[in-house]
Amino acid sequence: MIDPVELHATCLPFAEARTLPAAVYTSPEVLATEQSGLFGRTWLCAGREADIPAAGDFLTRDIAGDPVILVRGDDGRVRGFFNVCRHRGSRLIDDSAGKGLARIVCPYHAWTYRLDGTLARLPGGDAAAREQPGLVPVHTGTHDGFIFVNLDPAAAPLALQLEDLPDFSRFQLPDLRVGWRRTYEVQANWKLICENYSECYHCPGAHPQLARLSDLISRSSRPMEIGDCYNGGPMQLKDGIETMSLSGKRTVTPIPGLSADDHRYVYYYVIYPNLLLSPHPDYVLTHTAWPLAVDRTRVECELLFTREALERPGFDPADMANFWDITNRQDWALCERTQLGAASRGYRPGPYQPAEDCVHTFDRWYAERLAALL
Amino acid sequence: MIDPVELHATCLPFAEARTLPAAVYTSPEVLATEQSGLFGRTWLCAGREADIPAAGDFLTRDIAGDPVILVRGDDGRVRGFFNVCRHRGSRLIDDSAGKGLARIVCPYHAWTYRLDGTLARLPGGDAAAREQPGLVPVHTGTHDGFIFVNLDPAAAPLALQLEDLPDFSRFQLPDLRVGWRRTYEVQANWKLICENYSECYHCPGAHPQLARLSDLISRSSRPMEIGDCYNGGPMQLKDGIETMSLSGKRTVTPIPGLSADDHRYVYYYVIYPNLLLSPHPDYVLTHTAWPLAVDRTRVECELLFTREALERPGFDPADMANFWDITNRQDWALCERTQLGAASRGYRPGPYQPAEDCVHTFDRWYAERLAALL
Amino acid sequence: MIDPVELHATCLPFAEARTLPAAVYTSPEVLATEQSGLFGRTWLCAGREADIPAAGDFLTRDIAGDPVILVRGDDGRVRGFFNVCRHRGSRLIDDSAGKGLARIVCPYHAWTYRLDGTLARLPGGDAAAREQPGLVPVHTGTHDGFIFVNLDPAAAPLALQLEDLPDFSRFQLPDLRVGWRRTYEVQANWKLICENYSECYHCPGAHPQLARLSDLISRSSRPMEIGDCYNGGPMQLKDGIETMSLSGKRTVTPIPGLSADDHRYVYYYVIYPNLLLSPHPDYVLTHTAWPLAVDRTRVECELLFTREALERPGFDPADMANFWDITNRQDWALCERTQLGAASRGYRPGPYQPAEDCVHTFDRWYAERLAALL
Repeated sequence: MIDPVELHATCLPFAEARTLPAAVYTSPEVLATEQSGLFGRTWLCAGREADIPAAGDFLTRDIAGDPVILVRGDDGRVRGFFNVCRHRGSRLIDDSAGKGLARIVCPYHAWTYRLDGTLARLPGGDAAAREQPGLVPVHTGTHDGFIFVNLDPAAAPLALQLEDLPDFSRFQLPDLRVGWRRTYEVQANWKLICENYSECYHCPGAHPQLARLSDLISRSSRPMEIGDCYNGGPMQLKDGIETMSLSGKRTVTPIPGLSADDHRYVYYYVIYPNLLLSPHPDYVLTHTAWPLAVDRTRVECELLFTREALERPGFDPADMANFWDITNRQDWALCERTQLGAASRGYRPGPYQPAEDCVHTFDRWYAERLAALL
Repeated sequence: MIDPVELHATCLPFAEARTLPAAVYTSPEVLATEQSGLFGRTWLCAGREADIPAAGDFLTRDIAGDPVILVRGDDGRVRGFFNVCRHRGSRLIDDSAGKGLARIVCPYHAWTYRLDGTLARLPGGDAAAREQPGLVPVHTGTHDGFIFVNLDPAAAPLALQLEDLPDFSRFQLPDLRVGWRRTYEVQANWKLICENYSECYHCPGAHPQLARLSDLISRSSRPMEIGDCYNGGPMQLKDGIETMSLSGKRTVTPIPGLSADDHRYVYYYVIYPNLLLSPHPDYVLTHTAWPLAVDRTRVECELLFTREALERPGFDPADMANFWDITNRQDWALCERTQLGAASRGYRPGPYQPAEDCVHTFDRWYAERLAALL
Repeated sequence: MIDPVELHATCLPFAEARTLPAAVYTSPEVLATEQSGLFGRTWLCAGREADIPAAGDFLTRDIAGDPVILVRGDDGRVRGFFNVCRHRGSRLIDDSAGKGLARIVCPYHAWTYRLDGTLARLPGGDAAAREQPGLVPVHTGTHDGFIFVNLDPAAAPLALQLEDLPDFSRFQLPDLRVGWRRTYEVQANWKLICENYSECYHCPGAHPQLARLSDLISRSSRPMEIGDCYNGGPMQLKDGIETMSLSGKRTVTPIPGLSADDHRYVYYYVIYPNLLLSPHPDYVLTHTAWPLAVDRTRVECELLFTREALERPGFDPADMANFWDITNRQDWALCERTQLGAASRGYRPGPYQPAEDCVHTFDRWYAERLAALL
């Protein structure tokens, strides 16, 4: 399905490298390989601890094609389970989120599980339950307020995967709360979304609103940071611009304690494979991407604010939310037309342009992993 | 696609057996194997003789993905043919049922067939017709008023397949007539529907209406009957309950001549692979299941009554029909959520519970046949 | 997927030949082979020169699954390019047709191409553009006013493919203009549409309007013409009938200079693989067929008139257009029911009837090509 020579060409040093072969964007076999070998064996950002603060609070997620429950137990721990009854395989929970669950009860035969996954009751009584196994667990971990899951039973620790992630502690991520959220279904491969986010070469023509706010060349004037699990870096706000929003002005309290530099920059990081993290002086923008098909990706976008900002009377995220909703949609349209082109035999892997260094970094990260799976 | 070891585990004695591997519910390759090797080579219930009582009455059916005409000939015999013109392959009949057909005329080039499938006329005249072959026949047979078809040109006799079927003659099936009919499209594999029907372990929680009428443990108090072509058995009506209906009361004349025992029980049989037969004291409930996709099944449900009951002024099946429509929909919802779970890598074949002996019987019947096809 | 013996049976002399095996109408693998090996390596009619008369006029087309731009350059030449940016693969043009394009600008990163495909500008400036390759070209050619494209980079000249095409110059095709156009999506394989067009054996029963106008047996009374790239021939208009239209009367100026014979006949040609050309005394009917799926074909139908006829005040193609729209729809319904039959295991390749000599010719042309690709 994929020519290893083409994948290798993506892994060459920047000047000689070629963009990814078309099939990685169009082949259902590649997607199946990604779902089993990449998304099925990597720590993926699946939400935030603040989404399920109390015992019995839960999220359900489709992870690499598999339904997963994330639930906070009576002991305060977040655990993950396949959303599948151990008895005959019925889906357990339909809602995408909820609060205050005491037990997980299967709607089919009423098998009843505790929040730690053990079986509490069978129709035949508590004694019968003791002999049966509980829910099949899924590894979970947390970092900086984010919940990560890994479907691989033999998963290495999350900390190992995030070993060289930059320190974002000054942005107080665990304490931030969601002030706006939107889900998009983009008719494009998930990697096109990561690549699009990894360069601003397209910004002058494609993002007139963004181009008014941000110094588009700053990404190359200050070198990008490139690590094992991420790439990204800063873009400078133009003079007189306080944040990324339709007005360019701040309308909420900034995150306290940031440096003067942090007030002049917005940061954009791709944390492999599916988290886009963008700290601003007054809020943090996140995207998580979930492949649905070779040409379809679900993207969840959130704006996170300090509790102080959120709880202030008259809090209104519209200025920022409308800006990012407009910019998101501009980007999805570009990703979608690239999806159409990648499906053509007229597609040719080509050289990266100077402003596409982070695209190359992401592509090489991906190509190395895919090559290992073939 | 399927690990033979897993199929073998389903065939073990009850105590050690494991439920079917997930792929039998989710793999298109398994469905293709079933359609060619199981549904394509087995006698399948396709309707009832009473549906086409007179010469020229017909049904069309999609059998294992193939369009079939069932038509009663001038000689009173029911015959089956592929619904495909012998000339260039045009579909012949669009309607799902009809009456009084004299000839089958292809809408493309007007090739004209007799009801026995022989060619009667070509545009070039009757003489030319004599040199051409007729419609491709499909084996048909009848039993107890039901019409069965078998796409296999080398099909063994129907009687052999139904050799050990219990005697239902006291229910006078050939004389019963349809009083209510509903077609459902269930988003679940056909086997989940058979399994669901094979146990009442789910009834207490899932069927409150049914639980009011029927003694749910009776299925285990009186042993299930298990044969080569079927499994099933009785469930006792609760005291004061006369039949399965919303009111629990009989509103139509009972089937004459039944024993006192038959007035106290409802019987539920799975007749492999696609007929569910449920005699009641005053009517007979039938379901036929037709796979459309690995995760989609068409189910036709009928209520059959004596002609006396049907022809009585004011006949109204609503009390029974509404009960079964509610119960059907409860079951389909459970099957659909099990389909969702079976598609997950969190699905694990597990032990059968004591109340699931008939599920095991059905699954073993299936696993043995699938294993022979791999 | 295909038994070579069955394909060979189609290639036998007429009396012993058998119609095509079912899989050529139903197998996605066969379609993929056709798209790569047949539609991807053959000259296909993609439009007419008159559709893009001036510099910067363009059409976009989906050719064998690939998006293609056909554009007339500043030098008056028609050129073809994949509708895919050479940089990262974005689709360039969304509109199906347009006029007066000066440059082709990619909406993603604003790479800008001249109408000859060379790169004119990059965001980095004109100098950077000089080092980058231009659009990937697609071979184009023209014949008798039609534009043909060939996706094969090693395509032989168009003239070679059309070497033995009859001379249609008396119909003045390059000078005709579109007076009516309709696009159909037919739920049938593209070959069923060609086969349907290749015989009038179905006309007496299926086309009552057409049967009033045309002597249906004339196709066999005057021998069909059979060449390497086409088959077809004349059908005689009935006495008193002047053209194919609902009224049977001519309502527009005839094509000047035609012979008395050309006024008594309508001609129907299949020009392999996807052009159906039907000259009438007063207009020319064309169909082009584009496979979308094994069971789905896009058909574009046009009526071409002399400019004199078109420009005459009160020009109205309704009498002819309504006739052909009715007849087209009758044919599509027949093709669609044959598609349904071909998907059945009840389909049997059978002998061709005497009136189906052109069907055999088309099928043999196809079977020889498919056999070479297997």
